Amino acid sequence: MRFRGIVSYNGTKYAGWQIQPSFHTVQHVIQKILSTMHQRSIVIYGSGRTDAGVHAIGQVFHFDSDMNLDGEGWMRALNAQLPNDIRIRNVEATTPDFHARYSAIGKRYDYLVNTGLYDPFRYTLVHQVNQPLDLPLMREAASLLVGTHDFTSFCANTIEETPNQIRELRRLEIVEEGETIRFILEGDGFLRYMVRMLVGNLLEVGLHKMNVESLKDILNAKDKLATSKIAPPCGLYLVRVYYRDLP
Amino acid sequence: MRFRGIVSYNGTKYAGWQIQPSFHTVQHVIQKILSTMHQRSIVIYGSGRTDAGVHAIGQVFHFDSDMNLDGEGWMRALNAQLPNDIRIRNVEATTPDFHARYSAIGKRYDYLVNTGLYDPFRYTLVHQVNQPLDLPLMREAASLLVGTHDFTSFCANTIEETPNQIRELRRLEIVEEGETIRFILEGDGFLRYMVRMLVGNLLEVGLHKMNVESLKDILNAKDKLATSKIAPPCGLYLVRVYYRDLP
Repeated sequence: MRFRGIVSYNGTKYAGWQIQPSFHTVQHVIQKILSTMHQRSIVIYGSGRTDAGVHAIGQVFHFDSDMNLDGEGWMRALNAQLPNDIRIRNVEATTPDFHARYSAIGKRYDYLVNTGLYDPFRYTLVHQVNQPLDLPLMREAASLLVGTHDFTSFCANTIEETPNQIRELRRLEIVEEGETIRFILEGDGFLRYMVRMLVGNLLEVGLHKMNVESLKDILNAKDKLATSKIAPPCGLYLVRVYYRDLP
Repeated sequence: MRFRGIVSYNGTKYAGWQIQPSFHTVQHVIQKILSTMHQRSIVIYGSGRTDAGVHAIGQVFHFDSDMNLDGEGWMRALNAQLPNDIRIRNVEATTPDFHARYSAIGKRYDYLVNTGLYDPFRYTLVHQVNQPLDLPLMREAASLLVGTHDFTSFCANTIEETPNQIRELRRLEIVEEGETIRFILEGDGFLRYMVRMLVGNLLEVGLHKMNVESLKDILNAKDKLATSKIAPPCGLYLVRVYYRDLP
């Protein structure tokens, strides 16, 4: 039987989602508990990797098991053993053809910036910016990025590993929540570092260190060397993964 | 010249405020920076200790220095070297007779309980309670605790170290903020573990594991063995220290 899980994690202490030899990753922690429960090696498949220090509200994964547990049972069994910074939000039986990565049709990431007083309680959870941000100008720049583009300039993927660097960015909103600025990005898929590089460049525009025209030039350049601006991982959250026929 | 500082800290990684040999404490971290700046040992005096894992929004301390810096200068110099979980909020020159501890006339502590879904982003910042709390009953119990009482039953101090265990609890409010319950306690002074033991016992009442009459009996017993209930440190914040003639 195949199961689909939704997991939240505080990525502060992890070298990201994906298992890597001799690194502490979220996938590794969950797999280890499942493998102990089954007394054999269980592999889980995530919707995609998240980088070191990046958080998730709703990362999705799937795994196969012959254990006779319902969703509630899986949640209880896993959460009882998981560390405090990883929490399973939902588990449901799914169809054998469901794949957390290949069935995904879109994702939402949020990026949080604190423009208020530096907050010692959130320093791993938001990116601190101490200068005022020009939100209208950032929104103007953001509107240029929405749509289907070749995002080569805004990612770390090589052409060899990812020949097609065209993605549809369906939404890029910049919302003011008191002194927190929330960037909401939705698209069919995101390249490595893409959200953080888009946000990093938009922040340059918001700080008047770059103009809107330059941002457009960077996008059009389709060149890895066009920009090296990247916002730090602590502000980034994988909020949701979308699937066809799933709410 | 004497200076008064206000400091916020996330106490998660610290063995409390007060310096102790071979422990990582907030006082130690600040003293070390000041001592390096002065090239001699500088001692700072806090308004009181906070325990391991307890946080502060507005801990107050004082120190003496002959360095020619104004408040802004001290803040910049200290914050530039402090770790991310300690932040100086204010520094001002004060009178030579000001003493962070002995001049204090009152304190406010807040205690935060999360009754919503377990939050992997705040597990060191709130105390998680998964059962529903009877707030009206807790408020009834809280009203019995307000006033001037001998709080011997609700503290860890021995009679030898603290002969007088009478304190005035001026305010004990229980405020609902969405799924967070905030306990606000103000008084002329607090004994060791007093806030956490008061909250720990009020939570027992809120969970219907103790009745209001029993709480009254514990208070009246003036006995260290009357209760061992204590809420964990992660929910506790030293919010403010009050001084005469200071806003």
